[in-house]
Amino acid sequence: MRIPLDRESAIPLYQQIGGHLRNAILSGNLTADTRLPACRQLANDLGVNRTTVENAYSVLEADGLVFSRMGSGTYVLPQTFIPTALKQNNNAALPLWQKSFQHEEVNLNLDMIDEMLQTAGHPQPISFASGISDTRQFPWEEFRKILQSVMRRDQIAALEYGERSGYAPLREGIVHILASQGLQTSSESILITAGSQQAIFLVSQVLLKPNDIILVENPTYSVAIDLFRSLGFQIIGIPMDNQGMQVEKLEKLLQQHHPKLIYTIPNFHNPTGTCLSGARRRQLIVLAERYNVPILEDDFVGDLRYEGHAQPSLKALDPNGQVIYVGTFSKMLMPGLRVGFIVADGPVYGSLLNFKRVSDLATSTLIQRALDAYVTVGRYQTYLHRSSQTFRKRRDVMVSALNKYLPSKVSFDIPSGGLFIWLRLPESMFADEFLPLACKEGVSFAPGKFFFIDKASGREWLRLNFASQPVEDIEEGIKRLGKAIRKMRDRK
Amino acid sequence: MRIPLDRESAIPLYQQIGGHLRNAILSGNLTADTRLPACRQLANDLGVNRTTVENAYSVLEADGLVFSRMGSGTYVLPQTFIPTALKQNNNAALPLWQKSFQHEEVNLNLDMIDEMLQTAGHPQPISFASGISDTRQFPWEEFRKILQSVMRRDQIAALEYGERSGYAPLREGIVHILASQGLQTSSESILITAGSQQAIFLVSQVLLKPNDIILVENPTYSVAIDLFRSLGFQIIGIPMDNQGMQVEKLEKLLQQHHPKLIYTIPNFHNPTGTCLSGARRRQLIVLAERYNVPILEDDFVGDLRYEGHAQPSLKALDPNGQVIYVGTFSKMLMPGLRVGFIVADGPVYGSLLNFKRVSDLATSTLIQRALDAYVTVGRYQTYLHRSSQTFRKRRDVMVSALNKYLPSKVSFDIPSGGLFIWLRLPESMFADEFLPLACKEGVSFAPGKFFFIDKASGREWLRLNFASQPVEDIEEGIKRLGKAIRKMRDRK
Repeated sequence: MRIPLDRESAIPLYQQIGGHLRNAILSGNLTADTRLPACRQLANDLGVNRTTVENAYSVLEADGLVFSRMGSGTYVLPQTFIPTALKQNNNAALPLWQKSFQHEEVNLNLDMIDEMLQTAGHPQPISFASGISDTRQFPWEEFRKILQSVMRRDQIAALEYGERSGYAPLREGIVHILASQGLQTSSESILITAGSQQAIFLVSQVLLKPNDIILVENPTYSVAIDLFRSLGFQIIGIPMDNQGMQVEKLEKLLQQHHPKLIYTIPNFHNPTGTCLSGARRRQLIVLAERYNVPILEDDFVGDLRYEGHAQPSLKALDPNGQVIYVGTFSKMLMPGLRVGFIVADGPVYGSLLNFKRVSDLATSTLIQRALDAYVTVGRYQTYLHRSSQTFRKRRDVMVSALNKYLPSKVSFDIPSGGLFIWLRLPESMFADEFLPLACKEGVSFAPGKFFFIDKASGREWLRLNFASQPVEDIEEGIKRLGKAIRKMRDRK
Repeated sequence: MRIPLDRESAIPLYQQIGGHLRNAILSGNLTADTRLPACRQLANDLGVNRTTVENAYSVLEADGLVFSRMGSGTYVLPQTFIPTALKQNNNAALPLWQKSFQHEEVNLNLDMIDEMLQTAGHPQPISFASGISDTRQFPWEEFRKILQSVMRRDQIAALEYGERSGYAPLREGIVHILASQGLQTSSESILITAGSQQAIFLVSQVLLKPNDIILVENPTYSVAIDLFRSLGFQIIGIPMDNQGMQVEKLEKLLQQHHPKLIYTIPNFHNPTGTCLSGARRRQLIVLAERYNVPILEDDFVGDLRYEGHAQPSLKALDPNGQVIYVGTFSKMLMPGLRVGFIVADGPVYGSLLNFKRVSDLATSTLIQRALDAYVTVGRYQTYLHRSSQTFRKRRDVMVSALNKYLPSKVSFDIPSGGLFIWLRLPESMFADEFLPLACKEGVSFAPGKFFFIDKASGREWLRLNFASQPVEDIEEGIKRLGKAIRKMRDRK
């Protein structure tokens, strides 16, 4: 035990030791039945006389904080918990440099929306705010067994660092899955990351410096906006329509801003659900090449298609390493697995690998090994097929519920895949203002403003996740949403 | 399947489809027995006639790449693997922006040293290069069982995102372990990270911008140097002696450079093994307060003490949030767990949490839950006690082997804890030049220059890990080292 002692203090050492332990016990940090170090040991640890420690322990014992058991040692007694003011953040005492962090709030995020929903008090709240698919679909029992057999098979190796670029068989497996979906690559081009969030993070850190300009669809994935802002980038939006990014407006932006990166979600875009048309895909690649700007393609649910024709991924159209592709198992399988990947060709791959190493050394190899054993091409396709059927049905239920229960003044497009419906409220109704009322009715959504670069715009939009709830709850949730909208309108 | 098609091309669509699949099969990305999509399905996916797909499949079948099984579909046939030139990085075709990454090499790191040792061809190589303790000590079978019971207990929840700051019971458990080691904090001050590497990464990203100045002990942890360099910081070294950082030289550096952060490893320093003296600890805190500079305390193996008095951690001496503390389970338990933590008070905590979120959303909750179930205070203390005894013995064996087998011109101090002996070679012998020869003799180490800010200095030093090998191998490894040194000397 390493107790801070001040040998120049007027307070005797035994009191310093006793005081430190008293605080630890009263704050609850040293819990009942914890054994204190033997007197001889602690005296030795701290470089004091054994009597000093014995005195400290006696006082603690007299105060009823510890008791000694003959021949076995000194133990902490149960206390009525007294929260201490020990680490209360006393602003007067705060170091100056800390003050610059005072006004920075923890970013509002989707977890907080569900907290809002939970605390609004409805007995059976229904959330459409989530950014992921339905985790209840995941066969955790099967995954548990696979985790077991991987631990038995690989033993200690399953808990070591492993290769920096990721577990080789998993990278190989990803190559096969991508090939089965029409994207050709090799395992040397794949870098395993902690979810697609880290993938986007690494790519943008390696390609941009603070004040550099990044082009993104406007609206776009909210945590990407938060990330780019945290890194001090200037974010310029490309307008969208129901065919995705308006590529015809891109050239002017490229000429005007000289961006260092174009970040795009071409398939079942978050939050709008749109797909970039085939013609625009080719145009986008041509323009990126002409203006020498890399493209970061975020394909978070690109394979979750319910109808219509499949467009090739931008990476599949890319002849020579212009496109960096990001995929993930988190959105479709389980978010807590935290396994995503980058597909990158050319020298930038080495820089991404270097930067991955300094940012967290490596991603947990155990989960990678389990995922490798779990996600075969066959199982992926089966899972995809089943998920597509389930989610298509949920989408259809949500669309008809929206038509049935919502005033005709809301508008939305029907997405052909993915997770989201992007809905526009009646004029002069703001989704963020409306959210607390909706929560009281027992339903939540993601307000549109979080997805826009300028948070003042887009307030009349909201994002509904149709994939995360069972059919019964979708109908009921949309009914509540309709009721809340009418209440909101009556208020005005 | 999303196959890129060019409808304006002179190449017929069936040939484009066939060509894409042919590449995928010949490259090995589509493996034998993979089932191709049904003709009707693929035609629908791509928006082409069914006949077009049928034609494409017929050509593939005629070429012996696939076969069709009546009523069951079309399957890929086994191929002699032909590595394709598909993604060969043709520099002529590389986008211009890629060229700026061409000269950046993947940083040499300790994995590569062990690769060098493996390929040097000695039948029983012995590595002293590792940065971690002995993973063979870890009771993986016990951990496997705990992982099982956690999966059974928590089911789907074990695979979801969980709290952004980390799994609450684990944060609580860390508070108890820290208290048992003499550091008082609360679970609201703890942020779980992907190993201590991510902890250092987050703190330095949040506190510094490119071109800002950071003070570090010189030498220091090599991956920290790589990190600070990657982020564009200016790194200024504080000289060391056998009592750790020479704090008496610090004030001048603070006045001269106005650093934004002091990064220090006060306990069993990496690579030198020294401990900062008690007087210097207090001076360091006073100076940091006076000059308003935060301290990042990296306590990677602070509890692994074999003798002598325990010094309090800097964080335990810190009255008001000046010190940000970083700890880890990776070094002592298993590196692949990738679980470390930050202890930070005051407003900076919120900024760290925000930045953690944008960099990877969250750390795998499954491993956190398993670790929570595994690491109780009692088990931690038992583990620590057992490890200390084992590693003390290994240190003693290495010290006497060094005295026995190495020329008297090498010099080193005996560390009172941790993992490393820091050894100085005879004059004008450079560890990095000497490493290949040592590897041929079947022994490796970490050359000193990687730990210095200026890689031209410190070449006569090397770091030996005494904790990672069993006693027999330590004796034999040092014998080989002695032999290699004599060979090297004879060459000169």
